[in-house]
Amino acid sequence: MKKCIINGVIITMDDSRNIIEDGFVMIDGNKICEIGKMSDLKASGDAELIDADGGIVMPGFVNCHTHISMSVFRGLGEDMPDRLRRYMFPMEDEILDERMVRIGARLSLIELIQGGVTTFCDMYYFEDEVAKAVKDFGMRAVLGETILSKPSPDSSEPYGGIEYAKRFISKWKGDSLITPAFAPHAPYTCDDNHLMEIRRLADELGVPITMHLSEMLHEMEEFDSKYGRTPIRHLEDMGFLSEKLIAAHLVYVDDEDIMVLKRNGVGAAHNVVANAKSGRKVSPAPAMHKAGMKVGLGTDGPMSGNHQDVLSLLGYYTKIQKQAALDNRICSAAEAVELGTMGGARVLGMADEIGSIEKGKKADIIIIDTSAPNIQPVYDYYSAIVYAAHPHNVVMTMVDGKVLMSGRKLMAMDEKKVLEEVSEVSKEIRTFAMELDRRARS
Amino acid sequence: MKKCIINGVIITMDDSRNIIEDGFVMIDGNKICEIGKMSDLKASGDAELIDADGGIVMPGFVNCHTHISMSVFRGLGEDMPDRLRRYMFPMEDEILDERMVRIGARLSLIELIQGGVTTFCDMYYFEDEVAKAVKDFGMRAVLGETILSKPSPDSSEPYGGIEYAKRFISKWKGDSLITPAFAPHAPYTCDDNHLMEIRRLADELGVPITMHLSEMLHEMEEFDSKYGRTPIRHLEDMGFLSEKLIAAHLVYVDDEDIMVLKRNGVGAAHNVVANAKSGRKVSPAPAMHKAGMKVGLGTDGPMSGNHQDVLSLLGYYTKIQKQAALDNRICSAAEAVELGTMGGARVLGMADEIGSIEKGKKADIIIIDTSAPNIQPVYDYYSAIVYAAHPHNVVMTMVDGKVLMSGRKLMAMDEKKVLEEVSEVSKEIRTFAMELDRRARS
Repeated sequence: MKKCIINGVIITMDDSRNIIEDGFVMIDGNKICEIGKMSDLKASGDAELIDADGGIVMPGFVNCHTHISMSVFRGLGEDMPDRLRRYMFPMEDEILDERMVRIGARLSLIELIQGGVTTFCDMYYFEDEVAKAVKDFGMRAVLGETILSKPSPDSSEPYGGIEYAKRFISKWKGDSLITPAFAPHAPYTCDDNHLMEIRRLADELGVPITMHLSEMLHEMEEFDSKYGRTPIRHLEDMGFLSEKLIAAHLVYVDDEDIMVLKRNGVGAAHNVVANAKSGRKVSPAPAMHKAGMKVGLGTDGPMSGNHQDVLSLLGYYTKIQKQAALDNRICSAAEAVELGTMGGARVLGMADEIGSIEKGKKADIIIIDTSAPNIQPVYDYYSAIVYAAHPHNVVMTMVDGKVLMSGRKLMAMDEKKVLEEVSEVSKEIRTFAMELDRRARS
Repeated sequence: MKKCIINGVIITMDDSRNIIEDGFVMIDGNKICEIGKMSDLKASGDAELIDADGGIVMPGFVNCHTHISMSVFRGLGEDMPDRLRRYMFPMEDEILDERMVRIGARLSLIELIQGGVTTFCDMYYFEDEVAKAVKDFGMRAVLGETILSKPSPDSSEPYGGIEYAKRFISKWKGDSLITPAFAPHAPYTCDDNHLMEIRRLADELGVPITMHLSEMLHEMEEFDSKYGRTPIRHLEDMGFLSEKLIAAHLVYVDDEDIMVLKRNGVGAAHNVVANAKSGRKVSPAPAMHKAGMKVGLGTDGPMSGNHQDVLSLLGYYTKIQKQAALDNRICSAAEAVELGTMGGARVLGMADEIGSIEKGKKADIIIIDTSAPNIQPVYDYYSAIVYAAHPHNVVMTMVDGKVLMSGRKLMAMDEKKVLEEVSEVSKEIRTFAMELDRRARS
């Protein structure tokens, strides 16, 4: 059965950034089979028609780094210096369980789909629960089980995440929507031997690795005092870096680090909003992009970046970088859209499958309603997407040829039921947060 | 006839930042007459009930600086160094007329109301057209006619805006919703004599003055070379500054400037997003706020900031400042909400009338639907507003006791008709932009 998106402005994000005004996209099964101008559309046969009504038809957004299940904790301990130690770690140590992970994942999946994200890369605990939710919702994702040198919510043993990940990978490897992965937490929370074991396993099993890298000042200081070099140079020297690595944050990187990352094919998940909210310095993401590195955008978890959609990152990316460089010409709207789509696809190692609207690619497509008063008039499509659109202007989200959201409504999932579960679990979390406040006072 | 907003979380933004969970706000005519807990609500009599359904009930946002009619030009010449000279000034010189000002104003009014803005401060040309549109829509605004040392769209004479403003002020002075004002463009586009004439007229007529100030590097250099001091010190010395001045931007201000502004009672309209997008340095707005100055937020015009809602400024304000200070504790979510409401009311000289939900104040109130998947769960109301809500989560906007928008629909205005007019005028503008491109090439 074919589907045909008609009457759209097709922002292809192909290499020549072709834009087809008054165009169509034909979808056969889960793939794009034809793109063209409406005037060239032959009889669409029995294809199901999806009318874009003059709106923007573009590749779905790719969120390269998040912890979606943390949505159940969203808004806890804001603007506090010790929020991780005061709330997050005790929550994860004492009350986080499979059920919370499942409910948090389902909540974020609604936001992701309603915000036009079609693929995301996640790392957290009990990732099997996330995988099941992703399948239920019909999303596409790279999912990595977090690995730590200490006991974690899913394991009483240090590095227990490796065993979990092996089981998880063998269960999900080859799935049409889910790419299982290893997710060592960071180079300062995993030792070199375990990192290299993970690297060998990832090669053996043919899966990616995702990890926080060069994110923290204490991380930089630790590597400098221990090895006299940056974590990135250290990881290269021991042979850990590869094109399979999806590195999140990369805030504290110098020009040599960028060369190292580039020659090893490492992908960068740049978390513009979360980094700013945490008071970190501005990441040299544009320099990485300019150097030819793979660069995409990530929201980070909902405690850090709060939003899970990529659309609202685009404006932050351009504006924060323009301001840091004191130059309004850099980081154009088109560049931001590229990072949010093809850039992300490259980072996740999926550039051949997603990230653009091209014949043969998976049909991960969204429609933005440009008739909205916050967008009109439209002289420049990239400007409309980056500087004017809000996530709520996304009116259709298709993943793998299936329409997951239309007219702001999820097609197959019961949004109300998810919100009821969130309401229940948030009561427990609120009670525990009050207990933590009591502990802090005493 | 009374109205009663029930079942809301009342974020009052009064001096002690009282929050009333499960509360109500009673409105009599255009004023708030009672606030309390639902359990204390006596028989509401024949009051019309507005059910907040557990959502946040808060004062409407105040947009302290914009040029709303420029929405017809939104998205033109993005990311270009010479966009003002290449597109904006020729557009204003050659094709801007009353009709464009009216259509642009009406487009922005929809966005403002749908985004929860209840008062804004505007400066542009043909401000009488803006005033009529504001009255039609039922909004509250401070409107200033722009005054320039050269001919402008509304006058063939230099400083012709002064005469226009005098007529405009005499027509609108005393209006319940509109505060007419003088709007000298900037200290580098108006000479000292005319600025002092405007100051005298403003005192005589009892109206505010709004002006761009310390926004441009060339402005700073000009005053330094001409007078050996900053524009702010120069304006103080000549006696121009007063508590009637609404100063937009204030990007390049030092500690002494802040003291000068403070002791003269000048209000600051901080345009966080527009400044970033223009590649200007980060404004010391938090220092101004800390020094006890009146500080509010502004979007700037839709060519500069693109959005006209204040809600999306709040996250930018906190994050850009945290990042600039490398400190996640500063500029809390609550502070951002304060700048967006009471802060703005103080800047516009309306602190006794609007900006908070208090007995006796004008009923300028909005409701945010916190049940949305991008907001849930809510542990901290200020965090929900600043870090999680999008403008589309605003579901009710009331100005002066009248509901202007409910369930995302404007009550009295024909949105579709406005968008049709925008479509028409944008065709003319697109044609002229192509003509400008041709001129640039030849």
